[in-house]
Amino acid sequence: MESTAAYLAAARGETPSHTPVWFMRQAGRSLPEYKEARAGTTMLEACRNPEMTCEITMQPVRRYDVDAAVFFSDIVVPLAAIGVGIEIKPGTGPVLDEPFRTEKDLDRLRNLDPCDVPYITEAVGLATAELGPKPLIGFAGAPFTLASYLIEGGPSRDYVNTKTLMRNDPDLWDRLLSKLAAICGEFLRVQTEAGASAVQLFDSWAGSLSEADYRRYALPYATQALMTVPESTPRTYFGVGTSHLLEAMTDTGASVIGVDWRTPLDEAAGRTKGRVLQGNLDPTAVFAEPEAMLAEADKVLAAGRAAPGHIFNLGHGVHPTTNPDQLKRLVDHVHETTAR
Amino acid sequence: MESTAAYLAAARGETPSHTPVWFMRQAGRSLPEYKEARAGTTMLEACRNPEMTCEITMQPVRRYDVDAAVFFSDIVVPLAAIGVGIEIKPGTGPVLDEPFRTEKDLDRLRNLDPCDVPYITEAVGLATAELGPKPLIGFAGAPFTLASYLIEGGPSRDYVNTKTLMRNDPDLWDRLLSKLAAICGEFLRVQTEAGASAVQLFDSWAGSLSEADYRRYALPYATQALMTVPESTPRTYFGVGTSHLLEAMTDTGASVIGVDWRTPLDEAAGRTKGRVLQGNLDPTAVFAEPEAMLAEADKVLAAGRAAPGHIFNLGHGVHPTTNPDQLKRLVDHVHETTAR
Repeated sequence: MESTAAYLAAARGETPSHTPVWFMRQAGRSLPEYKEARAGTTMLEACRNPEMTCEITMQPVRRYDVDAAVFFSDIVVPLAAIGVGIEIKPGTGPVLDEPFRTEKDLDRLRNLDPCDVPYITEAVGLATAELGPKPLIGFAGAPFTLASYLIEGGPSRDYVNTKTLMRNDPDLWDRLLSKLAAICGEFLRVQTEAGASAVQLFDSWAGSLSEADYRRYALPYATQALMTVPESTPRTYFGVGTSHLLEAMTDTGASVIGVDWRTPLDEAAGRTKGRVLQGNLDPTAVFAEPEAMLAEADKVLAAGRAAPGHIFNLGHGVHPTTNPDQLKRLVDHVHETTAR
Repeated sequence: MESTAAYLAAARGETPSHTPVWFMRQAGRSLPEYKEARAGTTMLEACRNPEMTCEITMQPVRRYDVDAAVFFSDIVVPLAAIGVGIEIKPGTGPVLDEPFRTEKDLDRLRNLDPCDVPYITEAVGLATAELGPKPLIGFAGAPFTLASYLIEGGPSRDYVNTKTLMRNDPDLWDRLLSKLAAICGEFLRVQTEAGASAVQLFDSWAGSLSEADYRRYALPYATQALMTVPESTPRTYFGVGTSHLLEAMTDTGASVIGVDWRTPLDEAAGRTKGRVLQGNLDPTAVFAEPEAMLAEADKVLAAGRAAPGHIFNLGHGVHPTTNPDQLKRLVDHVHETTAR
């Protein structure tokens, strides 16, 4: 009998055969085979091409033997799918043709229908067929983070327009975020329906909010998006610089909390009400010499023992200039030292 | 008899006549009179022109009647003064001709001598003469933050090169940071000698480090820089996104801790060992309607009562597009509602 995949066992708080490991952004920009596969294709074209999406999703699984694949996509894919004018500029990120500013802009946001994203359903099907028992983690951006791109029109350092809208027109904010939550939730549901066995919701920029603002302006919508996915499906919720939000983040109903490298996992365990934790090696630690990197990884593993379950990961996405050999060393090390 | 300026009283943990208020980046880019004064002058030229520096330092004091002036400068001014090739690009920030990468680059960093910065001594003298009893806060960047600009060659999102150097060559890191600490410290000392009655050390990017890395790679050098200033001089130490570092930051010996908007001051008070606190209205809250902004300010004032002393400020620098009328409203409100 095949035992439950280590990732799923850990995510459910059961005892896995070893500490599972995968990397945020493992599929993509740091891999030479990715650059080869992507040559001549824009990011959105790649996300709409099921064969290419499947190939890119599989590449890190083949190279590293990580315990889970993460679905290759971009957080703005569902917005582009409903007709919002967006381009993903290399080296910059998503850039909107017209930023969201007023009530009228709500008309540009209709509900996402599975028929809008047949390429997602197909790509998930191809990937899960190739993965066999290895889990695929579905991927979506969270409503607050998505709203920040929509309102700023692109990446931002301080989210002035986003926070101004949320404070000055809470009613419009609520209508916008509710729509985005439905879109994010549906984007995750499409992936789980097609075979993804877990999901991760990326609220990358939620850490820019104080806890009071987070609870009022971001948490309800992240919760709504996560609730779209069946409770039996492991649901990970992640943000950067959220040391001050960890307690609040558990109130989304997420079963796994992704922690960035700023908060040691043993400390995070005391503040996340029995949630399984994911993380949290500093993504820059993989630029250290192998021995120093593995020593840091050992600290993460030791701290992770304080949590009811631990999925090893970096504390944020793989940096584009990361040496893949270092990630391979990390995977092997985590597997070897935690095998039961 | 003139009573002690509210800022100094609060910074020393004494009882001020009212809660003092000033704004990080009050002198500069958000003020129309600043843009006028600076027209046709580069940032470094402005920092080396005593009359212009004094004028810019005074502008927000005249406009807002804040309780302290902050010396107008840039964190790379002392580096430029010892011959490091640096340009401050509008909209980007400091950009180095040649980033710091190896031991050889140490030769480019000699000690700062007061004779290197006669324009600082002169500008401080002019400003303190004009300020009268109102205090001038001396300004410097902290060694870690300065190192990040030196090593990355400019602003960065993830500090990969900086953290790689600190992990892979701790000996070179120590020599570099010790030199920078001496330079920062001397830059502050020149200002206090010339008449500044307090200082603030800006470790803006220290929050990118875990507490363990911060304690090893940043804290000792910030401490060294602050120790250059007499203990009787109020010394404020500030960083962004340092919710996880507040305890550690008090170990620098700073008498005032600057807190960003992510951590409520009552919570911060419980973690900063009796230090006076400065902060911490979200800089984006000044884009809200006046009433909503003042309601947020009241929450900050209420939370600040839990600290042994409170200096009202934003949680980070004034955003360039801030409406000065809103800052004026804030100052008046803090003064009116806290007068004893």
